[in-house]
Amino acid sequence: MLALAYGALVVIGTLLLKLPVSRTTSLSWLDALFTSTSAVTVTGLAVADTGSQFTFFGQVVIMLLIQLGGLGLMTFAVLLLTALGVSVGLPQRVVLREELGQSSLHNLVQLAGLVLRVALIIEAAGAVLLAYPFTRDMGLWPGLWAAVFHSVSAFNNAGFALWPDSLVRYVGDPVVNLVIAAQFMVGGIGFIVIGDIWQKRNWRRLTLHSKLMLTGTALLVAWGWFIIATLEWTNPATLGGLSWGDKLLASFFQGVSPRTAGFNTIDINGLHDPTALVVILLMLVGGGSTSTAGGIKVTTFIVLVLTMIAFFKRRMALQIFGRTLGVESVFRVMALTAVSLLIVMTSIFVISISHDGAIFNLGFEVASAFGTVGLTRGTTGELDTLGRCIIMAVMFIGRVGPLTLGFLLATRAVPRVRYPEGQVFLG
Amino acid sequence: MLALAYGALVVIGTLLLKLPVSRTTSLSWLDALFTSTSAVTVTGLAVADTGSQFTFFGQVVIMLLIQLGGLGLMTFAVLLLTALGVSVGLPQRVVLREELGQSSLHNLVQLAGLVLRVALIIEAAGAVLLAYPFTRDMGLWPGLWAAVFHSVSAFNNAGFALWPDSLVRYVGDPVVNLVIAAQFMVGGIGFIVIGDIWQKRNWRRLTLHSKLMLTGTALLVAWGWFIIATLEWTNPATLGGLSWGDKLLASFFQGVSPRTAGFNTIDINGLHDPTALVVILLMLVGGGSTSTAGGIKVTTFIVLVLTMIAFFKRRMALQIFGRTLGVESVFRVMALTAVSLLIVMTSIFVISISHDGAIFNLGFEVASAFGTVGLTRGTTGELDTLGRCIIMAVMFIGRVGPLTLGFLLATRAVPRVRYPEGQVFLG
Ligand SMILES: [K+]
Ligand SMILES: [K+]
Repeated sequence: MLALAYGALVVIGTLLLKLPVSRTTSLSWLDALFTSTSAVTVTGLAVADTGSQFTFFGQVVIMLLIQLGGLGLMTFAVLLLTALGVSVGLPQRVVLREELGQSSLHNLVQLAGLVLRVALIIEAAGAVLLAYPFTRDMGLWPGLWAAVFHSVSAFNNAGFALWPDSLVRYVGDPVVNLVIAAQFMVGGIGFIVIGDIWQKRNWRRLTLHSKLMLTGTALLVAWGWFIIATLEWTNPATLGGLSWGDKLLASFFQGVSPRTAGFNTIDINGLHDPTALVVILLMLVGGGSTSTAGGIKVTTFIVLVLTMIAFFKRRMALQIFGRTLGVESVFRVMALTAVSLLIVMTSIFVISISHDGAIFNLGFEVASAFGTVGLTRGTTGELDTLGRCIIMAVMFIGRVGPLTLGFLLATRAVPRVRYPEGQVFLG
Repeated sequence: MLALAYGALVVIGTLLLKLPVSRTTSLSWLDALFTSTSAVTVTGLAVADTGSQFTFFGQVVIMLLIQLGGLGLMTFAVLLLTALGVSVGLPQRVVLREELGQSSLHNLVQLAGLVLRVALIIEAAGAVLLAYPFTRDMGLWPGLWAAVFHSVSAFNNAGFALWPDSLVRYVGDPVVNLVIAAQFMVGGIGFIVIGDIWQKRNWRRLTLHSKLMLTGTALLVAWGWFIIATLEWTNPATLGGLSWGDKLLASFFQGVSPRTAGFNTIDINGLHDPTALVVILLMLVGGGSTSTAGGIKVTTFIVLVLTMIAFFKRRMALQIFGRTLGVESVFRVMALTAVSLLIVMTSIFVISISHDGAIFNLGFEVASAFGTVGLTRGTTGELDTLGRCIIMAVMFIGRVGPLTLGFLLATRAVPRVRYPEGQVFLG
């Protein structure tokens, strides 16, 4: 159902973008479809330059697709989870009731309203702040429009920018860097966490999910920042030519952005290979559940890490912040991660059969699509029709897949036959 | 303890290979250490050409290191598992008792003897069969020595060959291809499976582990064969110039070899990228537990796949061949896979910081080392000291790691504190 709604939105977007009033040049059906998919899935990979190949009307269409695709899913996720908590026997039910205090359909509507209100307030505040640098550089009306567009794009982690090189021209601008980064970090941490913080305002009373998300995000951001700053510090293609302060700012921005935002202030194609490898891993992890982010999600990654730690401590139980995570979590995480790797690997494999470029850059592009990130080393533009179709499919799966899978698991079947337990040797 | 024994063997091997009597040219300490590590871990990655840079004495040393490293671990694995089954509270205990009928130390020694006898018989038979083509081409004594050396190398899945291009010159020779492939398939499936088949000789009475290993191996071989034949059929650098029959033979051989043997009859560096990607995955999976193989092992891979299937069937239980696999299996598989990916990714990351070549080929080399496979796209020879040291470490971990981890898990600690169960949103 979710997939159908998204598919319909993609089709409507394609038709609107194909209208002559939307574009300044010719645009093939495939490219219109690609752009619409990229906007609805808030990925940001582009085969047409948003700033020059689309008119103001076309850009408004893209912005609306981003808003509906990003917020729609976020609202839908919260509604779905809450609905499941009320009516279906999901184990999360108790948590959700505790966290959100929802127990009737009336509250559901209220909650959806809250999601939308918070989003619009943050987007409006972002636009006001961005208006200063953008009107200064572009004049009044174009600057205001750029402020609105990038604010929506940032909060929804869409990564669409009106400049062909994303935000490279604002690499040293603290307002642009900090406002946009703050927006996509809030948008990417997940509404459940925001709501929890808003309600409790006290670390110790936060839910386990919020604590994990905040700690995990802080660690991933610190790690990304550190790696990019260290490895790229003297790279003339990226940080090399910048001042000390700009190096720190740009490496911070680029360390946060791969976790689903997709904006860049330095040339992604100029990154050293090991840096690009770390960016790929960050893109695959993505952001928070019930957020505008893609990827396997931060909590999934944390459970993976906790499993490793438990393994080395010779324990079967995952313990964190005074709570135990059941084996069901381990089961879900393994299935999710395995399915994700399968999708990513299969996509790289199929595209590489007909694509001639470096397979590492192709892997970067597929990871970017799966995490709905939108960072690119240039390969997406070079892909043939098959390659573009697969990237579109991966963006779509990266966006609606995990939630759909979550729904599948929520309505779990109990096996009718119980077999005796078997044992195999592993490792 | 296992790691210490292996470390000692590596050191002894290094000293012997460094002796002037072992080599025809100068050989640095690092290269001697690398060769010794590669032989003891039965990997087969080489920085010195075995056939030309080592004397007959040096080659005998390498063969003995392979025999001790390969068979030693295999024997040790069986003994360890059986010992655990007798004295420690390992869940596998029941199975092991059932399978091997072991219950006293006397039987342990008997079992170790059986492992050795079976190995020596297969190696001797292989040498006799290989003697025909090798004496025909090289003369009597060199041919006999080549037959013995390659037979030991094949059964132990070591992948060491006396020719710099491995077995490329025998690409169309059915005797060499089939004998060597048969040897490394038997050596790579695991002694537990061989013993089980020997005892039962009836599919339905085989243990779950044997059934999984045989089915999984058959599927992986068929898949590797199919992919390589399909993608490389017209590639002039690999299968392109061969006859129909040779294409089928070579693609079969190359489809089986990545699962840990490491011999090649076609140029690995000439493989198309998608083919190389599949080879990487096969190398990471590796062979069977308690075998001469590395990697995460076939059964681990099967449990991964079963978890995905169960997930899509909305079930929490893994069912196969009328048996249920407990959550403990899922837990172990996830920890093993996550740790393996962490080791592989970290190694690629660290080496790529100072290495300039294509990162994809570097990933190929690291996967080859982790699976103790030994196939190469040429990167290992180009690595600096740091890179070689990391490859050595990965070979060592790939060999002794899983068993050591298995031992860790067998002596699991029960957590003293039990926390209440928490819930997080995943995916
Ligand atoms: K994005
Ligand atoms: K090998």
